[in-house]
Amino acid sequence: MCAKKALQKPLVGIIMGSKSDLEIMREVCIVLDSFNIPYEMNILSAHRTPEQTSAYAKGAEKKGLKVLIAGAGCAAHLAGVITSHSILPVIGVPINASPLNGLDALLSTVQMPGGMPVATVSIGKAGAKNAAILAVEILATGDKAIRPKLRRYRARLSKAVLDSGKDIH
Amino acid sequence: MCAKKALQKPLVGIIMGSKSDLEIMREVCIVLDSFNIPYEMNILSAHRTPEQTSAYAKGAEKKGLKVLIAGAGCAAHLAGVITSHSILPVIGVPINASPLNGLDALLSTVQMPGGMPVATVSIGKAGAKNAAILAVEILATGDKAIRPKLRRYRARLSKAVLDSGKDIH
Amino acid sequence: MCAKKALQKPLVGIIMGSKSDLEIMREVCIVLDSFNIPYEMNILSAHRTPEQTSAYAKGAEKKGLKVLIAGAGCAAHLAGVITSHSILPVIGVPINASPLNGLDALLSTVQMPGGMPVATVSIGKAGAKNAAILAVEILATGDKAIRPKLRRYRARLSKAVLDSGKDIH
Amino acid sequence: MCAKKALQKPLVGIIMGSKSDLEIMREVCIVLDSFNIPYEMNILSAHRTPEQTSAYAKGAEKKGLKVLIAGAGCAAHLAGVITSHSILPVIGVPINASPLNGLDALLSTVQMPGGMPVATVSIGKAGAKNAAILAVEILATGDKAIRPKLRRYRARLSKAVLDSGKDIH
Amino acid sequence: MCAKKALQKPLVGIIMGSKSDLEIMREVCIVLDSFNIPYEMNILSAHRTPEQTSAYAKGAEKKGLKVLIAGAGCAAHLAGVITSHSILPVIGVPINASPLNGLDALLSTVQMPGGMPVATVSIGKAGAKNAAILAVEILATGDKAIRPKLRRYRARLSKAVLDSGKDIH
Amino acid sequence: MCAKKALQKPLVGIIMGSKSDLEIMREVCIVLDSFNIPYEMNILSAHRTPEQTSAYAKGAEKKGLKVLIAGAGCAAHLAGVITSHSILPVIGVPINASPLNGLDALLSTVQMPGGMPVATVSIGKAGAKNAAILAVEILATGDKAIRPKLRRYRARLSKAVLDSGKDIH
Amino acid sequence: MCAKKALQKPLVGIIMGSKSDLEIMREVCIVLDSFNIPYEMNILSAHRTPEQTSAYAKGAEKKGLKVLIAGAGCAAHLAGVITSHSILPVIGVPINASPLNGLDALLSTVQMPGGMPVATVSIGKAGAKNAAILAVEILATGDKAIRPKLRRYRARLSKAVLDSGKDIH
Amino acid sequence: MCAKKALQKPLVGIIMGSKSDLEIMREVCIVLDSFNIPYEMNILSAHRTPEQTSAYAKGAEKKGLKVLIAGAGCAAHLAGVITSHSILPVIGVPINASPLNGLDALLSTVQMPGGMPVATVSIGKAGAKNAAILAVEILATGDKAIRPKLRRYRARLSKAVLDSGKDIH
Repeated sequence: MCAKKALQKPLVGIIMGSKSDLEIMREVCIVLDSFNIPYEMNILSAHRTPEQTSAYAKGAEKKGLKVLIAGAGCAAHLAGVITSHSILPVIGVPINASPLNGLDALLSTVQMPGGMPVATVSIGKAGAKNAAILAVEILATGDKAIRPKLRRYRARLSKAVLDSGKDIH
Repeated sequence: MCAKKALQKPLVGIIMGSKSDLEIMREVCIVLDSFNIPYEMNILSAHRTPEQTSAYAKGAEKKGLKVLIAGAGCAAHLAGVITSHSILPVIGVPINASPLNGLDALLSTVQMPGGMPVATVSIGKAGAKNAAILAVEILATGDKAIRPKLRRYRARLSKAVLDSGKDIH
Repeated sequence: MCAKKALQKPLVGIIMGSKSDLEIMREVCIVLDSFNIPYEMNILSAHRTPEQTSAYAKGAEKKGLKVLIAGAGCAAHLAGVITSHSILPVIGVPINASPLNGLDALLSTVQMPGGMPVATVSIGKAGAKNAAILAVEILATGDKAIRPKLRRYRARLSKAVLDSGKDIH
Repeated sequence: MCAKKALQKPLVGIIMGSKSDLEIMREVCIVLDSFNIPYEMNILSAHRTPEQTSAYAKGAEKKGLKVLIAGAGCAAHLAGVITSHSILPVIGVPINASPLNGLDALLSTVQMPGGMPVATVSIGKAGAKNAAILAVEILATGDKAIRPKLRRYRARLSKAVLDSGKDIH
Repeated sequence: MCAKKALQKPLVGIIMGSKSDLEIMREVCIVLDSFNIPYEMNILSAHRTPEQTSAYAKGAEKKGLKVLIAGAGCAAHLAGVITSHSILPVIGVPINASPLNGLDALLSTVQMPGGMPVATVSIGKAGAKNAAILAVEILATGDKAIRPKLRRYRARLSKAVLDSGKDIH
Repeated sequence: MCAKKALQKPLVGIIMGSKSDLEIMREVCIVLDSFNIPYEMNILSAHRTPEQTSAYAKGAEKKGLKVLIAGAGCAAHLAGVITSHSILPVIGVPINASPLNGLDALLSTVQMPGGMPVATVSIGKAGAKNAAILAVEILATGDKAIRPKLRRYRARLSKAVLDSGKDIH
Repeated sequence: MCAKKALQKPLVGIIMGSKSDLEIMREVCIVLDSFNIPYEMNILSAHRTPEQTSAYAKGAEKKGLKVLIAGAGCAAHLAGVITSHSILPVIGVPINASPLNGLDALLSTVQMPGGMPVATVSIGKAGAKNAAILAVEILATGDKAIRPKLRRYRARLSKAVLDSGKDIH
Repeated sequence: MCAKKALQKPLVGIIMGSKSDLEIMREVCIVLDSFNIPYEMNILSAHRTPEQTSAYAKGAEKKGLKVLIAGAGCAAHLAGVITSHSILPVIGVPINASPLNGLDALLSTVQMPGGMPVATVSIGKAGAKNAAILAVEILATGDKAIRPKLRRYRARLSKAVLDSGKDIH
C-alpha cells in the first residue's frame, strides 16, 4: 500500500473509480514516493459518487493541488468529469477492466471534445507509472529543483536497460 | 426543425452534447411527434456545461419527465453523467463525430460499470430513431393507450418493407 | 441459483441463449430479488428454438410481463429476434462467449436497424447487473413506489465506494 | 435491375433486409443470370417482417429452392434467422450499411453458435458476387452439368487478369 | 481422435494447416461421424506444402469429394488457396491461433475477392461444428435422404436447449 | 497561418512530422494566440530528420520552452522520440493520416512504455485544440496569472453551448 | 505509367493482384526508376491465376530477380503465396481495397506462420513507396554501389522536411 | 539462451527494447544458429537509451552488419528509430506486451511514413522466427551459398507438416 504523506501538503491528487483499480494505481504512488512528491489518494466514482467527485474536482485547486490523476476502466468517464470541474491538468489512466482489454477505457478517456483535454497515458500499469512521471514533469515546469531528479530517474532507466543487456552476452 | 410541444407537459427529455448533433437527434423528435408524445430538447454538454447538465438531470424526475435521451459523440460521457444524477431510464445515442466512426462513442456510452445502466442504441440516425421508439415502449409499460400506436407503427414498418419488395419483381 | 418467484406474477422475463450464459445472467436475478421484483427465467435460443422463442416473445405482453431481458453471445441475435415479436422494451446483454471478447455480441445486439430498438447494456456481468437496474428504472416510470428503492440502491452504491476509500488511508 | 426468371422454377432464393441493399445484391442476379440459374428475389426483414421471413424460410425447401442467399447490414440477423427455420444451406452477405464499415454486419453474420451455420462471404459487392458463385458451386455438387460452366467462369476470370496485365507493358 | 472411414469413399475432404489445429478440427469429424458421412482428413499447409496443397485441391473433384473444409489460423490462406484450385464449395474455419484472437484468421478467410468464394463460418470450435453441418446441408441439396437426419439434428439441438432450461426452475 | 510571436520568448514548442499536418496543428496556434502564450512552430520528422529532431528536443529546456506539443500520423513516433530526449512534458496529437482513421497514430502515441510518458489527446482537430489548452493548464500550474484566462475560456465554451441551445426552441 | 526497363535484366519483380492496384503500385516504379533499378511488373492473382502465380514465383530466382514485391487488397494472399514458392525476400504491400480500410489486407499479409516471412510495409501508397526503398536496401546489402544513392535519397527526404518548415515562419 | 557467435564477425544485429522481450526474440537466435549466421544481440530502448540506440544504428553498417532486427512491444518505436539512422534493411518484430494483444505494436511498427520502411513480420514468436528467415533470405540475395540451406529449411518445414499428418490416419 502507498504511504500517506501526512506532513506535507499534497501536490498531486490521485483518484480512481473503484478499489479494484488500486492494484494498478499504486504504481503512481511508488513513483511519486521515489520523487518525494506529496500526494493524496481517493476512491471516487464518476457515476456512483457524482456529487463527491465534482466537489473534489472543484476544490482541488484551492486545496493547493497542482495536478490530478484519474484512473478508471470500462466507459471511463472519471478523468473527463474531473476535467469538466477543474482547470488543473488532468491525467487519465485507462484501466483494463472489461473483456475489451482496455480499448473501451482508452477511447473513453482520450477522445475528449475540443477544449476539454485529458492527458491520456498508456493502458494499465505502464500508464500508472507514466501518469506519475508526467505529473512530476508538469510540477517541474514551475519548480526547477525537480528537474535534476527527473534526469537522474531517466539515467537510472537507461542504466537498467543497458545493465539488463550485459548478462545476455 | 422539431416542433416545440408547448401545451403538453413533456414526458421525454432529449439532450445532446453539441448543436452539430442536431442533424442526427432530430430523428428522435420526428418519431415522438408521430406518436404525439410531448418532449423537450436541450443542448447540454457533460464537459462544457457540467453544472447545467447535472442540474437538468437532477430536476428531470420532479419536472415530470419519464425518460431521458442523450446523444453525444467522441468520448461520449453525456448519457453516463445524466445517469449518475437521475434514476429515470437514460437512453444513449452514440454519434459518429470523430475519425473513429462512432466506435469511441459506442464504447463510451455502453460500457457503463455495474449498477449504472445506459440503454444504448445503434450509432447515428438509426440509433436516434431507435431511442425514440424505445422511449415510447417504456412509456407504454405504464400507459396501455400507447400500445396500439406501437403496433400500428410496427405494421407500417412491415408494410413498407413488403411494399418495397413489390417493384423489384 | 436464482430463487423462483412462485407467488407473484412475474413482471420481467429473462431469457438467455444457452445454459452457459447462466453464470452471467444470474446477476440479473440477484438484483431483481433485492428489489423484490418478480421475474421468470428461461433458456431460449434465437437459432435453436426459433418457434419457442417467437412464441415466448409474442405472448410476453399478454402474460403481464413489462420488460424483457435477453442475454446472448457470439452473433447475439436473441434480443433482436425478441424485439421483432414484441412491443415491450427489450434489454440486450452482450455476453463474452467467443474469442472476440464480446465485441461480436455487442455489435450484434446494439446495431439494430431504425425502428427496432434493443436497449443494450455493457458486456458480461456488469451488463447483467445493469440490465436488471434498467428494468427496475423502467418499471418505476409507471410505479412510483419503486423509486425510493432505486434511490436507496444508489445510496448504497455510493456509500460502498466512499467506504472502500477509507481503508486506503 | 435483375431479370425475373418467370419460366423456370427458381433454385436460389435471394432475400435482403432493405431495398437499399439492392444495389449490392443485384451482383448476385448478374452472376446467376450468366449461369442461367433460375432464382427469385424478395425483400424481407428479420426484424420488421419476422412472420413473413420465417414463413419464407420454412417454405423454401418445399418450394424447390436449393440454396438461400441473405444480404443484410448493421446487426445483420437475417441470414441467421433464415438458418433457424431451414435446413437449406444459407449464404450470408454482410452489407456495409453503418458507420462501422460492415464490421458489425460481418460479425453478426459469421459468428453463429455451434450447429447453426451461415456460409459467410466478403463484405459488400465482392461478397454478393461470391455468394452467387458459392450457390452455383453448391448446386454443382448435385448437378454435374453445371461444372463445366464453373470452369469456364474461372477461365474467364483468369484470362481477364492476364489480359489486364498486357497493357501495363 | 476421429475415426478413419475406411470402407466408404469420402465425400468431404477436411484439411488443416497444422497439427495444432486438430483440437479444433476434430469437431468436424465428430459431427460428420454422427451423420455417417464419410470423410478424409489431411494436414496440408498453404505455405509450407504448397505443391501438395494445390495437388490435393486439383484432385479433389475427380476423387469424388463433394465439399472441402479448410481450417487455418493467423494469415489463414489455406481455404483461399484451395478455392483457387477447385470448383468444389470450400468452407473456411478461422482458427484462433495468434495474439489477435482469430480476427486475423477471420478476415484472411472471409474477405475473398469477387468470384472466388470461401464459405466462412465462426472462429474456433463453434465454427468447426458449423463447417460440418454446412457440409451436410450442401450434400443434402443433392441427396434427399440426408434431410431427415438434418431435421433430427435440429430437433436434438432444440430439445437440448429446452431441457437445459428445465432445471433452472 | 499562425502568427509568429517574434517579440516574446516562446514557452511552447510545437512540432509536426509533415507539412500536411499543418491544417490540423494550426488549431494549436489559434488557441495559444487567444491566450497570448508565445510559441514557436517547426516541422521535424522522427524518421526523416532524426538528428534535427533529437537536437531540438535536447535543446528545448535550455531555450526556455516549458511544454512541447508533437503532432504526427501513421506510426506516430514523433512525440515518443521527443520524450526520449527531454524531461519537459510532451503532448502528443495523433493525426488521422492513413486509411486506418488515426487508430494507428493513437496507439503509436499513447501506448508508451513505463517511465516515458506522452500526454496524449484526441485524434485530429479536437486533439490539436486540446493540446493547446492542456499546455496552458500546465503553464498555469506555475503561473497563477493564467488561471483566470482559463476560467474565462471555460465560461465562453459553456456560454456557447447554452446559446446554441436557445435557437432550437 | 511506369517505364519498362527493357535493356537491363530486372532485379525486382513487382506483382499485383488486380489492375485496380496499379494506382498504388506505380509508386514502386517511380522510386525504383529514381534509383535506376531495373524491374518488371505483372498482374497476377493468388486466386484467379494460381498456376501463373506459382510458376512466376518458382521461376523468379532463376530469372535473376533478387527481390519480389506483391501488392494486394482484401484477403491479401498474394505475398504469402509467392513466399510459399520462392526463397527470395518477398515484400507485401497491403492495399486498402475493401470497406475495412485495409485492416483485412494488413492482417492477411503480415500474420504469416513461423518460417514463411512476408516483409510487410504500410497500407497503401506510403507502403508502395516503402516497398521500393526496402527492395533497394536489400539489393544494397550485396551491392555497395547503391548505398550512396540511399544516403542521397535520405538526405533529400530530410531536406524536403526542413525546407517545408521554412515557409511556415 | 542464445549462444554468442564470438569468432565470426556478426552479419545480423538483433536488438530488443526490454529484457522481457528476450523470451520471444531468442527464436531469432535459434534460427540464425541453425543457419550458422553470425549475429550479435543487444538490449536497447528507443525511449530509455535513445543515444545508445541511435549510435548503434549509425555504426551498424560500418561494423559490417548487413541486416538489423528490432523487437518491441506497446508503442513499438524501436524499429522505426533504427531505420531513421541506418540504410540497412530493418526488420520489425511486433511483440504482444500490452493488454491490446500486440495490435499497438503491429501498427506502431508497420505504418511507417513513405520513404522509411520497416519490414514488419507477424506478432510474437512466429514473427521472431520469420524475422530470422527473412534476414537469411536477404543475406542470400548477395551470397548464393546460403540458398541451398534455405531450400533445405523449407524442405524440412514441408516434411514436418506431411509427417505430422501421417499419425492422424
